[in-house]
Amino acid sequence: MTTITLTTDFGSGDQGAGVLSGIIWSIAPKVHIADLSHDITRHDILEAALLLQRAAPYFAAGTIHMAVVDPGVGTPRRGIAARVGEQYFVGPDNGLVSLILARAEQNKQPSSFVQLDRPGFWMSEVSSIFHGRDIFAPVAGHLAAGTPLQDIGTPINDPLRIEIPEPIRTSTGWIGQVIHVDHFGNLATNLKVYHMNQMKEVMILFKDMRITSLASTFGEQPKGTLIAMVNSNNSLAISVVNGSAAQTLQAAEGDKVELIGR
Amino acid sequence: MTTITLTTDFGSGDQGAGVLSGIIWSIAPKVHIADLSHDITRHDILEAALLLQRAAPYFAAGTIHMAVVDPGVGTPRRGIAARVGEQYFVGPDNGLVSLILARAEQNKQPSSFVQLDRPGFWMSEVSSIFHGRDIFAPVAGHLAAGTPLQDIGTPINDPLRIEIPEPIRTSTGWIGQVIHVDHFGNLATNLKVYHMNQMKEVMILFKDMRITSLASTFGEQPKGTLIAMVNSNNSLAISVVNGSAAQTLQAAEGDKVELIGR
Amino acid sequence: MTTITLTTDFGSGDQGAGVLSGIIWSIAPKVHIADLSHDITRHDILEAALLLQRAAPYFAAGTIHMAVVDPGVGTPRRGIAARVGEQYFVGPDNGLVSLILARAEQNKQPSSFVQLDRPGFWMSEVSSIFHGRDIFAPVAGHLAAGTPLQDIGTPINDPLRIEIPEPIRTSTGWIGQVIHVDHFGNLATNLKVYHMNQMKEVMILFKDMRITSLASTFGEQPKGTLIAMVNSNNSLAISVVNGSAAQTLQAAEGDKVELIGR
Repeated sequence: MTTITLTTDFGSGDQGAGVLSGIIWSIAPKVHIADLSHDITRHDILEAALLLQRAAPYFAAGTIHMAVVDPGVGTPRRGIAARVGEQYFVGPDNGLVSLILARAEQNKQPSSFVQLDRPGFWMSEVSSIFHGRDIFAPVAGHLAAGTPLQDIGTPINDPLRIEIPEPIRTSTGWIGQVIHVDHFGNLATNLKVYHMNQMKEVMILFKDMRITSLASTFGEQPKGTLIAMVNSNNSLAISVVNGSAAQTLQAAEGDKVELIGR
Repeated sequence: MTTITLTTDFGSGDQGAGVLSGIIWSIAPKVHIADLSHDITRHDILEAALLLQRAAPYFAAGTIHMAVVDPGVGTPRRGIAARVGEQYFVGPDNGLVSLILARAEQNKQPSSFVQLDRPGFWMSEVSSIFHGRDIFAPVAGHLAAGTPLQDIGTPINDPLRIEIPEPIRTSTGWIGQVIHVDHFGNLATNLKVYHMNQMKEVMILFKDMRITSLASTFGEQPKGTLIAMVNSNNSLAISVVNGSAAQTLQAAEGDKVELIGR
Repeated sequence: MTTITLTTDFGSGDQGAGVLSGIIWSIAPKVHIADLSHDITRHDILEAALLLQRAAPYFAAGTIHMAVVDPGVGTPRRGIAARVGEQYFVGPDNGLVSLILARAEQNKQPSSFVQLDRPGFWMSEVSSIFHGRDIFAPVAGHLAAGTPLQDIGTPINDPLRIEIPEPIRTSTGWIGQVIHVDHFGNLATNLKVYHMNQMKEVMILFKDMRITSLASTFGEQPKGTLIAMVNSNNSLAISVVNGSAAQTLQAAEGDKVELIGR
């Protein structure tokens, strides 16, 4: 049984997210549908790309990830479908699949992209403002129902790419930044395990606070303690035990984080 | 595979929405369940009726729409099940299916209604305050499992109807109103494409603002621009590009919108 | 078709809840997944235990309830799987299954518990902070795919138990408390139907308000009326008709409620 995942900024109060299921099941009646999130911050392509990168490895080969965070809908931006490694992607060509693609390329996995230019696979009427419903959902349905990728559009090799900002090397370590604030107020950064590889001990400077060691879990520290740890996505993260680092420190995406090695 | 859709004002924090799946799958183990929304504004029957009207066409023939926005639960208001065109509806008889029904009648599609008066299709105990769980979910399950509509209740021909307020004709055009504010703060009105049919050019007056043309998409205008456009449900809508018209203009359902033709 | 239900405090904005589906379907491709709630108040084990107790009876025999509200993740707290009556439970050993277990024992239903200590049923890498993803979801998947409970861990007979605080007997009745505030602001208490059994008439004292009778439904009272009623879970609840008792009375979990019989 194929799975289609949905990642959008539609919210869950309107019918926008729900109709996608109707369209998909009309074309591919046996597919599973998993709502990854309909609460992406409006138009925040990087947030959705990060979520997809984190979630995709937990889905089976053949899974189709449909993502619609689409500030350019109605402009000439392309719609695309892609095979990246063993999974598929459908959505606007604005970078949503970038981080999955970058990882696949690092792992020497093949990828292929098509531009969605064949209206026979779309709804018969296409609104200029809701391609999620009128183009991407039916295309995802047709892929799930067995239409080969190469039949659903015309090959391209230049999908638009966006990147997570890279940490900057300093004489004592790295300067990174907060790239995601999660539901619990934990602050994920762009600093990864390999940035700490040569360091015997680490110190983290953040907003005039100094964190002098890495915790390995929340449970070992008293409530309210400010800690740094490697999170479940292998990123350095800043947290407050049983609290919200985002709230306590008035922190947000883009805030600088300095990593100093010893 | 049959699909049952769920539309309620239960929210998603309590168990109210989740138990519906348990009941339905206990009776009809193979059915798909699509959550259209559990975040309808409390007791807002018109909001749910609009959502159903917009969503239903994207679901396959045979789909069962269960909707429970039910301020009258426990009073003598009836429970109903219906076939409208090729799809089914289950819920309280308070107008939730009205707009789907009105469209079906315009399109000369047949409909038939039954009153839910056969406790053999319900949970064995029926609370006076949660008919979604105790009556409507099991009835939807039995319909999905193959019980014919006429066996599940007694025929009626007077389902309660509610209507979207109609725009009022003026010497220069129409006065309509905002009927829905979506997740992005876009303001959908009761003015439709056919209200503009005889007009070569249109002007929209709203809250002392004047909009002098129809945009065809968001992407073509600078961020922050106040625009009017035909939305993905063929209604005239007022939006702020990459912003929230509801917030910017302090607008809400019921606000007057004047359409002037030239 | 087996159903797995999910109850967490992960929120629905991150990928945390969505990846659980991917893992489960990778192992048990045909299972149904029902999201009971991902909006449990952070770390509120009692809230999740109550929700499970209320929801479980509406699911079929064989259903697997996975619940992850897990303040102790990364500490030596155990992970468990259990069979309680005809259903299964997977999650941290912190009391989440307590109320289901207590009811099963009252009803003389058997139960058996195992400690999750067999990494062959987990993800190959286990983070110290996300056992929902790395341990509980794959274990739920293996149970759904047919692995017997006794193979998935080592038997234990001392699962951690938590309890709803019991009402206190007074000379005229009982003093109970609010144990749950629902989406509509209704206040569920720990006072049950059997606490009122010997009383011909009841009076409820709450926050200097006096309620002198039990309503049987919302519909029979004018909007704004403060009422007490037996709710759909057979608890005494305090409500405001078409309003929010929580807001109107500034009430919260733990607030005292006095029941006086006559």
